[in-house]
Amino acid sequence: MKNKIEHINQAIKHYYAQNKVSKDLVEAILYSVDAGGKRIRPLLLLEMLQGFGLMLTEAHYQVAAGLEMIHTGSLIHDDLPAMDDDDYRRGQLTNHKKFDEATAILAGDSLFLDPFTLLANADLAADIKVRLIAELSAASGSYGMVAGQMLDIKGEKSLLSLTDIAKIHANKTGRLLTFPFVAAGIIAELSDLSLAKLRQAGALVGLAFQVRDDILDVTASFAELGKTPQKDQKTFKSTYPSLLGLNESYAVLEDSLDQAQSIFQKLSTEEEFDKTKIDKMLERLRLHA
Amino acid sequence: MKNKIEHINQAIKHYYAQNKVSKDLVEAILYSVDAGGKRIRPLLLLEMLQGFGLMLTEAHYQVAAGLEMIHTGSLIHDDLPAMDDDDYRRGQLTNHKKFDEATAILAGDSLFLDPFTLLANADLAADIKVRLIAELSAASGSYGMVAGQMLDIKGEKSLLSLTDIAKIHANKTGRLLTFPFVAAGIIAELSDLSLAKLRQAGALVGLAFQVRDDILDVTASFAELGKTPQKDQKTFKSTYPSLLGLNESYAVLEDSLDQAQSIFQKLSTEEEFDKTKIDKMLERLRLHA
Repeated sequence: MKNKIEHINQAIKHYYAQNKVSKDLVEAILYSVDAGGKRIRPLLLLEMLQGFGLMLTEAHYQVAAGLEMIHTGSLIHDDLPAMDDDDYRRGQLTNHKKFDEATAILAGDSLFLDPFTLLANADLAADIKVRLIAELSAASGSYGMVAGQMLDIKGEKSLLSLTDIAKIHANKTGRLLTFPFVAAGIIAELSDLSLAKLRQAGALVGLAFQVRDDILDVTASFAELGKTPQKDQKTFKSTYPSLLGLNESYAVLEDSLDQAQSIFQKLSTEEEFDKTKIDKMLERLRLHA
Repeated sequence: MKNKIEHINQAIKHYYAQNKVSKDLVEAILYSVDAGGKRIRPLLLLEMLQGFGLMLTEAHYQVAAGLEMIHTGSLIHDDLPAMDDDDYRRGQLTNHKKFDEATAILAGDSLFLDPFTLLANADLAADIKVRLIAELSAASGSYGMVAGQMLDIKGEKSLLSLTDIAKIHANKTGRLLTFPFVAAGIIAELSDLSLAKLRQAGALVGLAFQVRDDILDVTASFAELGKTPQKDQKTFKSTYPSLLGLNESYAVLEDSLDQAQSIFQKLSTEEEFDKTKIDKMLERLRLHA
């Protein structure tokens, strides 16, 4: 897995190493790329591809890199003063604090626009690339991630229902966490029925991530999070723990992971899917009260 | 041409009419889409396609719409307080003035991410779509438009050379103005040699646009521009008129349009290109001292 992370990073850096247009812009982009993060989305994609028996190629790493770039861009914009106004991310100054707001806006813009070159030029069949691009764009734009961030901001300080926060997170984090599962199915050329199952599993993993994040905001320290903890409580944000309590939130986390794993169990017989590695990744998401 | 503009607008609106995720976000996006603008980039694409003898299809309008969406997104972000800090655009309040900064950032983000769904799902051959997507992404991200905006911001208040401002504008406005020419060539399945000529013509038209814009900033009124005039002078911005004087700027504008037209003249024999309409569009860009 360490090698995979290294390879994902290289795929992103290789794309920017050729860029001589604005060195200031590339520096700001790479600052946030290098700020680390666990590369969970691209790792999910790669583990899924291997689960379907594919040998990983440079093209797969480029798709993985494109996905991580969009995620990184969204973090830069979410941290802006007009949005969540965060000074720290992953234990480091946020992009606009390290540079300035204009630079952070443009670094995020680049990380939204650039991945499509990477995907379009990857060594994969054109019809597969077109499907991956449609999927990534729809997952991240006004039908997905960005709309979720808008709902999140508009809902701040309001008392939201569980349905409201489920809708926010299904879009804000769920769609981009679903992409690696569906994308792996597209690359492995699975049936529409199997793709639908992968989409369902992805949504469950997305839900698990969000509940986990909300729980950790309550229970973890700055050192563990790399960012300011208890921020949700301080800003009176509606979260799974604030609506359900901590114990019930732990139960939702468990349940969504169980359901996702049972889908992978079915795929392991229907599509000869080796679920060992993905199971291991999902196990690591579990938290114990 | 009025029908074409109407059809371009409909292609954009049709894409957003289906969006039920965040009504606030869609409202902000459509506010800037509806703010008008002359739709020059998509019109150039459509006129070029007709010049190559193609019957316009819905797919062509979707490519045109995607291009205009990225342009509109860039205007929203350029107007932000952290960037050019403009209150008016095309005679109307800018997006962040009408709504708020967070909304304007997210509306721009959407307009950068969404077009790739539109292109990927258009009814064109997959290999053509992949080439169009690679071209549009490279023209707009850190290898193009966004990098140009970064260079522009970093260069503000500095005394720049002609080479500096040529580099800024070749990226900031030139790349996205080159796209319609190259994209038309890709859709018409022209040779690489003809594509290279179209790219050159696009760069010349891009230069003409920028010089024209700089001249108008000096000579036009608020009513004519739809935005605050003499802004460049007030902010001590290096422009073609500030470096070359007005007369020489008029000459650069004429010369770049002449050169572009001579490329279209050559293509009219080499590729049976009917240059009537594109010539007419370029003629309208001319200004007389």
